[in-house]
Amino acid sequence: MKGKMKVAVMLGIGKMGFEERDIPNPKDDEVLVKLEYVGICGSDLHYYETGAIGDYVVNPPFVLGHEPGGTVVEVGKNVKHLKVGDRVALEPGKTCGHCEFCKTGRYNLCPDVVFFATPPVDGVFQEYVAHEADLCFKLPDNVSTLEGALIEPLAVGFHAAIQGEAHLGQRAVVMGAGCIGLVSMMALKARGVSEVYVVDIMEKRLEKALELGATEVINGAKENVLERVKQLTDGAGVDLVIETAGTEITTRQAIHMAKKGSNIVLVGYSKSGEMTLPMSLALDKELTFKTVFRYRHIYPMAIDAVAAGKVNLKGIVTDIFGLDEAQKAMDYSVNNKADIVKAVIRITE
Amino acid sequence: MKGKMKVAVMLGIGKMGFEERDIPNPKDDEVLVKLEYVGICGSDLHYYETGAIGDYVVNPPFVLGHEPGGTVVEVGKNVKHLKVGDRVALEPGKTCGHCEFCKTGRYNLCPDVVFFATPPVDGVFQEYVAHEADLCFKLPDNVSTLEGALIEPLAVGFHAAIQGEAHLGQRAVVMGAGCIGLVSMMALKARGVSEVYVVDIMEKRLEKALELGATEVINGAKENVLERVKQLTDGAGVDLVIETAGTEITTRQAIHMAKKGSNIVLVGYSKSGEMTLPMSLALDKELTFKTVFRYRHIYPMAIDAVAAGKVNLKGIVTDIFGLDEAQKAMDYSVNNKADIVKAVIRITE
Amino acid sequence: MKGKMKVAVMLGIGKMGFEERDIPNPKDDEVLVKLEYVGICGSDLHYYETGAIGDYVVNPPFVLGHEPGGTVVEVGKNVKHLKVGDRVALEPGKTCGHCEFCKTGRYNLCPDVVFFATPPVDGVFQEYVAHEADLCFKLPDNVSTLEGALIEPLAVGFHAAIQGEAHLGQRAVVMGAGCIGLVSMMALKARGVSEVYVVDIMEKRLEKALELGATEVINGAKENVLERVKQLTDGAGVDLVIETAGTEITTRQAIHMAKKGSNIVLVGYSKSGEMTLPMSLALDKELTFKTVFRYRHIYPMAIDAVAAGKVNLKGIVTDIFGLDEAQKAMDYSVNNKADIVKAVIRITE
Amino acid sequence: MKGKMKVAVMLGIGKMGFEERDIPNPKDDEVLVKLEYVGICGSDLHYYETGAIGDYVVNPPFVLGHEPGGTVVEVGKNVKHLKVGDRVALEPGKTCGHCEFCKTGRYNLCPDVVFFATPPVDGVFQEYVAHEADLCFKLPDNVSTLEGALIEPLAVGFHAAIQGEAHLGQRAVVMGAGCIGLVSMMALKARGVSEVYVVDIMEKRLEKALELGATEVINGAKENVLERVKQLTDGAGVDLVIETAGTEITTRQAIHMAKKGSNIVLVGYSKSGEMTLPMSLALDKELTFKTVFRYRHIYPMAIDAVAAGKVNLKGIVTDIFGLDEAQKAMDYSVNNKADIVKAVIRITE
Repeated sequence: MKGKMKVAVMLGIGKMGFEERDIPNPKDDEVLVKLEYVGICGSDLHYYETGAIGDYVVNPPFVLGHEPGGTVVEVGKNVKHLKVGDRVALEPGKTCGHCEFCKTGRYNLCPDVVFFATPPVDGVFQEYVAHEADLCFKLPDNVSTLEGALIEPLAVGFHAAIQGEAHLGQRAVVMGAGCIGLVSMMALKARGVSEVYVVDIMEKRLEKALELGATEVINGAKENVLERVKQLTDGAGVDLVIETAGTEITTRQAIHMAKKGSNIVLVGYSKSGEMTLPMSLALDKELTFKTVFRYRHIYPMAIDAVAAGKVNLKGIVTDIFGLDEAQKAMDYSVNNKADIVKAVIRITE
Repeated sequence: MKGKMKVAVMLGIGKMGFEERDIPNPKDDEVLVKLEYVGICGSDLHYYETGAIGDYVVNPPFVLGHEPGGTVVEVGKNVKHLKVGDRVALEPGKTCGHCEFCKTGRYNLCPDVVFFATPPVDGVFQEYVAHEADLCFKLPDNVSTLEGALIEPLAVGFHAAIQGEAHLGQRAVVMGAGCIGLVSMMALKARGVSEVYVVDIMEKRLEKALELGATEVINGAKENVLERVKQLTDGAGVDLVIETAGTEITTRQAIHMAKKGSNIVLVGYSKSGEMTLPMSLALDKELTFKTVFRYRHIYPMAIDAVAAGKVNLKGIVTDIFGLDEAQKAMDYSVNNKADIVKAVIRITE
Repeated sequence: MKGKMKVAVMLGIGKMGFEERDIPNPKDDEVLVKLEYVGICGSDLHYYETGAIGDYVVNPPFVLGHEPGGTVVEVGKNVKHLKVGDRVALEPGKTCGHCEFCKTGRYNLCPDVVFFATPPVDGVFQEYVAHEADLCFKLPDNVSTLEGALIEPLAVGFHAAIQGEAHLGQRAVVMGAGCIGLVSMMALKARGVSEVYVVDIMEKRLEKALELGATEVINGAKENVLERVKQLTDGAGVDLVIETAGTEITTRQAIHMAKKGSNIVLVGYSKSGEMTLPMSLALDKELTFKTVFRYRHIYPMAIDAVAAGKVNLKGIVTDIFGLDEAQKAMDYSVNNKADIVKAVIRITE
Repeated sequence: MKGKMKVAVMLGIGKMGFEERDIPNPKDDEVLVKLEYVGICGSDLHYYETGAIGDYVVNPPFVLGHEPGGTVVEVGKNVKHLKVGDRVALEPGKTCGHCEFCKTGRYNLCPDVVFFATPPVDGVFQEYVAHEADLCFKLPDNVSTLEGALIEPLAVGFHAAIQGEAHLGQRAVVMGAGCIGLVSMMALKARGVSEVYVVDIMEKRLEKALELGATEVINGAKENVLERVKQLTDGAGVDLVIETAGTEITTRQAIHMAKKGSNIVLVGYSKSGEMTLPMSLALDKELTFKTVFRYRHIYPMAIDAVAAGKVNLKGIVTDIFGLDEAQKAMDYSVNNKADIVKAVIRITE
């Protein structure tokens, strides 16, 4: 497709702007997608506020955004499973296919991954993107492109639930009721876990958790979390903890509340990168700590779960901005973290 | 069997003595075993030096020792798989068989376990013991009762190797070359791991590791451990780390040297019970931490490995004392930790 | 509890009668349960019609019935987790706790199991039973003792689903819509499988399957099963097949419809004990065949699933008879196999 | 590399000839390998004798051979891990990298695989081949290119051993002592299985099995196989059976000799494609049947095992022919199946 498109770019720390760029041409194995919604992730905000995450440093102008949903408008000649008009969710990471990790199916660990909005690779706060067709997953009629955009954070929740071997019959705790905590909770429920208790310190988030299906919520600022979990489990402890808050205190609580022999899944990054943990207690309980990095093989399952009504993905969206409002969207998101569960940019009016 | 037996007892911190007690009568499901060798474990020394491990407090007189080998001299009427004269290794923990953990085969987590030399349960620095027959494993002709005694620490090594999913084709590191480090290294080799690098800071232990089959040894006091591992693996990192040293520094090194997606098995207890760890790095690598508590289902396999010549269990024994020398054995062990790999008490002359 | 109880006994092939027996006394680890409902299983009917299953030969008078639910009326002195008045589901097999299989958590393979209604062990078509308390699982308020009785067949379905590694995102087929086929279908749904297609040749059963939650049903007598599955899966085949019909034709179909690398769980016994199967096709597809024998560790999870409304267990009950009607219940069940999904004997009026 | 090379071609059933073809040019991701040894596989013989395997029909001239070892002589510009002069084993199947199976690490099930000597894809009975560099595995100094060629059949044995979850402490049976039976036996030993019993009906093969490390051999033509296994295992049965003979009789024996709850791995194809099996017995024992198709992720591990002296791969070679002797090599192999374990074509003098 010939023509120009509008691209929202990060021009520097705390500064957004716009550029006009050529609409890309899809290669033989690619499709061109007209984007409709792109979620704003915590990592986008982190780049926006600080200019870097670890070794990944933004060199402006840089395009943020890696949670896209849209409609196919052009199809590369080798593409068979998609056609113009298909609505799709886009998995943002293109991997090499050849390394030890790709070959063994753990492509999320591929060292040569090209991932939207991870410097120096641009993201997708823009009108069009050409993307590998195998990474574009067709949405069924009853799943919107808004939900398609949010498959990305949901995938993190599902990966955590799967790595933790979540299953029917368990009692689980999710530490943290931000976006990732909530999608983790919904992933647990979708995989059959009946009892999921969510812990946070902000009442508003806990209300959201209840609304989206949490069995019980615990306000760590007001209640003794360990006592409450003990009571909820008749002293047995929980079978699984998913830690999304990224704090030492919640991770320590996870170790204390976990039943002997159980799994703790670590999803949240701590600010300092370090945590001091009661490892001897963990050994006494023979706990397993699974850490997760992004996700793999989740999109079809996650779309299936949304289509089947097992996950209320729309329910996490609290704020929608237009592409023209990129600056406002980012600033508002930075300044209202406590109130926002998930903000999304609507690309197409 | 009627009669009296000699029992070495801990009379207080740093003080051993002897008692004469009745030779026990085996119940219907038990056998009476004339003990021949009992290993001295680090936990025995800890009780001897401090009087307690965590909540387990010695109330003298107390019998230490939980690594026994001996010969069956009497058989309960329900026992079918053993007869008088059979030489056996004794698994020291008797579990309830009814709890959630026992039922699901994870009996090492049974909260009602009765374990030799764990207060208030007496150990076996004594001439005879009556023990559940199912916990007494017959030794083949080419495995001695000295080796039988040492199946217990070897079981820890095998449990760690199994939890870590050790297998042929991997490169592994064992942190620490004490008794548990060495049996872990031998367990890895027996399970087919070709390349096992052992790290310690005491040259004498590293020499022992080489003698017992380590592929390479690294002296952490003299060499840059991470650089050396990088070089040994062509920069790839290792597929598995078994941490037996129980220090923060070695656990941190484990996280740094582990390949993405790999397992770290934590076996060693730290002195303070706490460790400060680079958890964000662990998440970036999607590492799994398996902790281990004792072992389960290991004895037959471990005996098989010794019988097949895959584990040189005699090779870890550095000192043998008579039962009469209990005081000397304990004092020497406490005072010469650097020189001793494994000390054993010979019960029968 | 002193007193007498009524017991329905099989007096010979096709002949039921009654006896008065002493109400049993619970041992220290047992509870006495006043039975309320006991399901009639296909194996009960087989004993009733032929006098034997394989090497298990009925020696009359013999008590049938192994699917019981009731209320605790007396508690042995060592029992802690149950009290008088608790309503319970009874797991019918008492295992040794000591063999290789029990120790490793696979107690359903225990060679010394004592299982209700498996000659020479009597079953529970009677008013009271004393049973190991650990095998009596408390029912929550919203689960009836009728449902409690049916936890037993449901456990078979869950064991099959678990062995087949059923999970969210799969498309599965259940071959056969008898009682076990239906509980397998419900177990799959409860574990998160969105799409479950059920195959049978009797329209009435397929209607039941739809009523209980099957995504689609296929009448093998009227439709080309393989074509229909191909169409439902866009040619991809299914991710999991649970075969409960026990026929060669359905097992062969399972192999044909399964996707490469998938699992087929074999639950149904064939009449002859033998099947001729296209094994080279199975190799080309690298299929795994899991067979299942009874179940293990399922009761708490199954009760949880019923309590959470994930399994409509009442929905499988088509016929309820009084204990006095034992002869009629058995005869009717034998003569109306096509119409009955599940018949139950109500012990207490 | 410019120039011509000699290629042995199958001109029709039972008829070999030669062609001169251009030496291929490696693409950017490929290397050019001067072949030194190529093994003759049973499938090569089957094409040679019958012109087809299932739907794969030879259209002459066709090049057989898919077990190659050689030396890199030219390197594509994107290739980093290999250089001219490196000796390599070549994994013969190039997969798509994009399908469900490739993405999840089960690339051996890729429907679009391009596999040497599988019509219409030519094999490698020729002097040079250009092959994807990622499928060329460098051999260490102590592994020859003859052994490199034989990594291919060894990979089948390792895949079978891994799928069967073979591990230290088991007793296993391998049915069949042909090439695949022998490599399976050696794979089991290399993974730590102490006791491996090999069953065949040809004494010569059983002698080879003993020579290569079998613990015991059983001649099914002279001994009662089930009785012998019972005796070797004290009545317990074996923990794992690998069936490579592809006959109904040996597969039935596998089901009878397997311990409850154990795995049977099916590797051998039966002539008719069908087998009549005692499936009810399999259900009573809750056996799992794993079937295997080729292999995945095995080459590095297999090369490691050969380098470490854990597998005597040279020991299976019974006959070596020159490339000029292609006709003789094929005819001799067809006519002397009983005497040949493994025949190899030496490409380079």
